[in-house]
Amino acid sequence: MTMETVSLNQAHGGTQGVYKHPSRETGTTMTFSVFVPPRRGDAPLPVVWYLSGLTCTHANVTEKGEFRKACADLGLIFVAPDTSPRGDGVPGDPEGAYDFGLGAGFYVDATEPPFAKNYRMWSYLTAELPALIAGHFPADLDRQSVLGHSMGGHGALTLALRHPQRFRAASAFAPIAAPSQVPWGIKALGGYLGADRAAWRPHDAVALIEDGARIPDLLVDVGDADPFLDLQLRPELLEQACAKAGIALTLRRQPGYDHSYYFISSFMEDHLRWHAARLKA
Amino acid sequence: MTMETVSLNQAHGGTQGVYKHPSRETGTTMTFSVFVPPRRGDAPLPVVWYLSGLTCTHANVTEKGEFRKACADLGLIFVAPDTSPRGDGVPGDPEGAYDFGLGAGFYVDATEPPFAKNYRMWSYLTAELPALIAGHFPADLDRQSVLGHSMGGHGALTLALRHPQRFRAASAFAPIAAPSQVPWGIKALGGYLGADRAAWRPHDAVALIEDGARIPDLLVDVGDADPFLDLQLRPELLEQACAKAGIALTLRRQPGYDHSYYFISSFMEDHLRWHAARLKA
Repeated sequence: MTMETVSLNQAHGGTQGVYKHPSRETGTTMTFSVFVPPRRGDAPLPVVWYLSGLTCTHANVTEKGEFRKACADLGLIFVAPDTSPRGDGVPGDPEGAYDFGLGAGFYVDATEPPFAKNYRMWSYLTAELPALIAGHFPADLDRQSVLGHSMGGHGALTLALRHPQRFRAASAFAPIAAPSQVPWGIKALGGYLGADRAAWRPHDAVALIEDGARIPDLLVDVGDADPFLDLQLRPELLEQACAKAGIALTLRRQPGYDHSYYFISSFMEDHLRWHAARLKA
Repeated sequence: MTMETVSLNQAHGGTQGVYKHPSRETGTTMTFSVFVPPRRGDAPLPVVWYLSGLTCTHANVTEKGEFRKACADLGLIFVAPDTSPRGDGVPGDPEGAYDFGLGAGFYVDATEPPFAKNYRMWSYLTAELPALIAGHFPADLDRQSVLGHSMGGHGALTLALRHPQRFRAASAFAPIAAPSQVPWGIKALGGYLGADRAAWRPHDAVALIEDGARIPDLLVDVGDADPFLDLQLRPELLEQACAKAGIALTLRRQPGYDHSYYFISSFMEDHLRWHAARLKA
């Protein structure tokens, strides 16, 4: 598998890289970023996957996420993929909206035309990109965890719930907890997966838990000034599902915080410490 | 003095704001950002001024600087002005270059036409904006310090050297230490101040020190992989001037670091701790 280095910058004693590669799954060139912390010796390092929200690329968290110092201190590799395929011929939202298509892949393998050809983010993230990371970075794929924001929080929760053996920790900032029940999710899952709602359940964290998926625990932060809280995120549905299923959810409603990277960066270190404790247990 | 709030976001327990106001000095609308850390009680807080480099606005450091956690921990207000006037009728570089005009005010009061009318960044930063900050924020202007990057490092050093009573601490990332002797500075000082090099000396840190300006100490970080180090920054000239003048310069050549915000953010906390120690002494 070939991979091209777009940029490399030393930061907090480690190396922040941006890379691109031709993706078999999406049929496009995909860009992602990887931070490798300073290494002590040759041992491979645990990998934290960060999935971004609507409209984002790898760049938003890479520039604004304030994760590098904590990753350097804790010895964590931090991988930030893009949120959708992009490029000539990749179809977007028919009306150019921000919540579907480009920048809004929702971490599914689309089955509906014309999206099915390129929008294969689930397979990209669960198989193709991990193999690329394993081949090019000092990564210990026996120690992985996943977190994300908003649409990427949805992605992180569904990845963790469907791969409980692979991800030793999961957390989210302001996740879309029950996409089948909110406007963003209904539009996206309908558009990518079609009208049969049974096909949506493997891509809905609350539905997955209702259907029996289990992980031991979960950290979720939401801001109580987040304008999307009540209509799109609905953390109370996750709270109810976790309580019923016996999943130890730590749900923190952070007073005064909104949906932005100012919120994410404020609690990023907390999340990475949560991940490190479980990755190193 | 009127001021308009562009955005307010809670971050690291404090408030990151972006503001704009009509400037008397520049004759334009000026934008700046202010982080106010979480407050314990009513006491006003020390103010750290951050001056940005070529091509930047207030936004670069606000998004990428990783200063908020340290400012929250240390109780520092952090102010990030723009680097030049902007707007209709403000002249830029005749050839559209990045190193003069818009985004490249070099922190001087221009005397040459057509720049003299708007390019009054020295007066803006030393008088107009401090008064605005004093009027709108819980700022203790008896405890100020200044730092900056590249062109803004030049600005920070000249502000500190010419106002040793006002600024209790000064530091810089990759400053243009001797603008009269390097291409960026020769172009800018010549363009804004004219051909008489005597007029440049109050805007050249090395010349100011040669001419008798004194501050007790100074922290400067440069990256040894900075592509501008030898031609534009020339920290060795600052080192020689400080040694001769008895200014306690801590000059650190950071191995592997470049000129970017990945470099700045890696050492921002160090700088803010240096400032806090002197602001609270």
